Amino acid sequence: MRTRFYNARILTLANGFDVQYGEVWVDGNLISYVGESKTCDERKTLEFDREINANGNLIMPGFKNAHTHSAMTFLRSYADDLPLLDWLNKQVFPMEAKLTGEDMYHLSKLAILEYLTSGMTANFDMYFCPDDVSKASIDMGFRTVLSGGVNDFIGETDSTLNLLEGWFRKFNQHHELIGYRLGFHAEYTCNLSLLKGIAALSRKYCAPVFTHNSESASEVEQCVNRYGMTPTVFLDSLGMFEYGGGGYHCVHMTDDDLRIFQKKQLSVITNPGSNVKLASGIAPIKKTMDMGINIAIGTDGPASNNCLDMFREMFLTTALQKIKENDASAVDANDVLYMATVGGSKAMGLTKCDTLEVGKLADLIMIDLHQPNMQPINNITKNLVYSGSKQNVKLTMVNGKILYENNNFYVGEDVEGIYQKANEIINRLR
Amino acid sequence: MRTRFYNARILTLANGFDVQYGEVWVDGNLISYVGESKTCDERKTLEFDREINANGNLIMPGFKNAHTHSAMTFLRSYADDLPLLDWLNKQVFPMEAKLTGEDMYHLSKLAILEYLTSGMTANFDMYFCPDDVSKASIDMGFRTVLSGGVNDFIGETDSTLNLLEGWFRKFNQHHELIGYRLGFHAEYTCNLSLLKGIAALSRKYCAPVFTHNSESASEVEQCVNRYGMTPTVFLDSLGMFEYGGGGYHCVHMTDDDLRIFQKKQLSVITNPGSNVKLASGIAPIKKTMDMGINIAIGTDGPASNNCLDMFREMFLTTALQKIKENDASAVDANDVLYMATVGGSKAMGLTKCDTLEVGKLADLIMIDLHQPNMQPINNITKNLVYSGSKQNVKLTMVNGKILYENNNFYVGEDVEGIYQKANEIINRLR
Repeated sequence: MRTRFYNARILTLANGFDVQYGEVWVDGNLISYVGESKTCDERKTLEFDREINANGNLIMPGFKNAHTHSAMTFLRSYADDLPLLDWLNKQVFPMEAKLTGEDMYHLSKLAILEYLTSGMTANFDMYFCPDDVSKASIDMGFRTVLSGGVNDFIGETDSTLNLLEGWFRKFNQHHELIGYRLGFHAEYTCNLSLLKGIAALSRKYCAPVFTHNSESASEVEQCVNRYGMTPTVFLDSLGMFEYGGGGYHCVHMTDDDLRIFQKKQLSVITNPGSNVKLASGIAPIKKTMDMGINIAIGTDGPASNNCLDMFREMFLTTALQKIKENDASAVDANDVLYMATVGGSKAMGLTKCDTLEVGKLADLIMIDLHQPNMQPINNITKNLVYSGSKQNVKLTMVNGKILYENNNFYVGEDVEGIYQKANEIINRLR
Repeated sequence: MRTRFYNARILTLANGFDVQYGEVWVDGNLISYVGESKTCDERKTLEFDREINANGNLIMPGFKNAHTHSAMTFLRSYADDLPLLDWLNKQVFPMEAKLTGEDMYHLSKLAILEYLTSGMTANFDMYFCPDDVSKASIDMGFRTVLSGGVNDFIGETDSTLNLLEGWFRKFNQHHELIGYRLGFHAEYTCNLSLLKGIAALSRKYCAPVFTHNSESASEVEQCVNRYGMTPTVFLDSLGMFEYGGGGYHCVHMTDDDLRIFQKKQLSVITNPGSNVKLASGIAPIKKTMDMGINIAIGTDGPASNNCLDMFREMFLTTALQKIKENDASAVDANDVLYMATVGGSKAMGLTKCDTLEVGKLADLIMIDLHQPNMQPINNITKNLVYSGSKQNVKLTMVNGKILYENNNFYVGEDVEGIYQKANEIINRLR
């Protein structure tokens, strides 16, 4: 399949934030040309299966949702406006315990539909049942990096470690759309022996490790009470981060914590929508940026956010820093756009689909500029962050295939069937 | 023109947040029926010009954008990520000074297009040149309440007062889509004599008064230095609020300020998007709510926000309170939905288009529930606030006329022409 986009504004993100005018060609799952418009003569030997007039709209790399729990769609708006612990212990955990692998397959599909509407071309997904979750992505043509999310509740420590190692080996050889990163749920849900075992796996496979880290003040306090160290210092002391990795949330970080992130080249994956909705706090993103630490952006799961919308997260990433720092110039919108795309790719190990360059994987989106919120054309990249919305996503292509275009999904099945399944599941579990 | 919506979920907001199933009929500019589905026999004597199968989607009152400066669309994403005073003094004021009335006409139209995409059916608009701004609304069929925004820079105090009184009289008799409320820009841009004159006008016409109030900490500090009182206490001491009114922003409010709002039945019009982007602060909305003060929501102008999106503002209204109060249960989403609709109507004097009831004006929207972010159907009203987006707005009807449907505008002219005008204007002024 060969696709040509012409009459396009193009933001490659390969080299700054300049927007150029021209064409993007896709051959199979790879980008084969990015540059100035070609005349008929210049491209006469090439045959395209589809030529799309972008009509001046913007082609750019897809957003990377660097932290989510896709299958939690069933709990979207199921139990909001509750104190945090009531929400978690009385609503989320009991309902999750009833889910089957097949449920997770269907519920992950619902999340993927939403990712596509928001211009996301990949997700970093922490949930149970990686077989079912990865099958949802493969069946729909979506790119997913699975994040290990083991904890003490799965079983005995040794068998949990075997499971994690097995998943790591299996899903890194499984399918071109699927990857797997070592990881665990959080320090507070894993015993010391499990954590040491994961650190050993990391060193065995020279593999980065990801986990929820310092999401709430009480989590940090409890870790200090337990081990005399913050989660970051403690995990680092176990040799967890010798091959990199990162933390989801990273709201309550000390300077020492950030220095470890800096030294070990870990990524901070920020989740501002979830952090405000659950009253967790505002992460020190400006400070993290100033230290040169890689930052990625995630939506967190739909039970806590509740929507899976990179535009909301991008606005919050900068706006909350402006409030935190009491400075309207804090965290430039272009830096946020970088976090949502290239920063995410870096954290997730997807450096082959970070920018629009020849030879990169064709994970790209088209942004409709012919909408009132994108006019006048003063500054396209800043406008994406400050004014962009899902409504502007005209097309989402993953691995060279168009999965979403002009509000229609091309994911191999009727979306109403996916909605119906999600409703059946929550009605059964309720 | 008679329109029938059937197979609809309906949120009337007339009596709580329950969603019913049935039909809504519109006859001319009024709602003529809201209730259970009617059989063919029951409606056989009625002829509709259009019958719309809502397909289970939600019909609800339109959102009211209770504070904006529409014509500032030309500055959207023109100068972001700057310190507040640089932004205002070096970018906004010099550019605004170059605008003509005709410019404002075209630029207001661009904002109205965006209001329609976000399900807003009315705006409370403070800007110069009310003739041009109101003409934009009338020509497009949009409902606008103009907010007086006079200050010292317009001219001599007496002539400014004459102008304000003239506008107040003219635009309250001008057109069914237009209203006018007394108001001024802010305490810090009006001399004492002008403020006293406006207070006198308010008493002469028994009219409420609106103004920017306590948006930034420095504004409050300067007023205290000048008059020994906060803006609210000072303005109240001039007899400004004997007939009600309200304040835009209201971020830095003392308990005394809020007690005046409570006693004088003033409305707080909150602008959370602008307040975070400009690092102004987080308004005490929970406290304001607990005191029973009416709250409305506005986007503020597109230069400071930068988008005109009630879904973003609704999410921020509750999410920022959760952070401020350190309580995930602070400010229930249903209360926010009420602020964005009925609360706005109350502030703007639009009590004839606040709810869906027989005899009310037909200012309504249809929300697409057949989208992944609205599934599964756990709680529609909470989901609107936590997960809703412009993308879910399927139809916007103002005064009985459909102005936006399925991503198309029905505003009497080609939207590309409006985009082109906005680009011409900023390119001329740049």
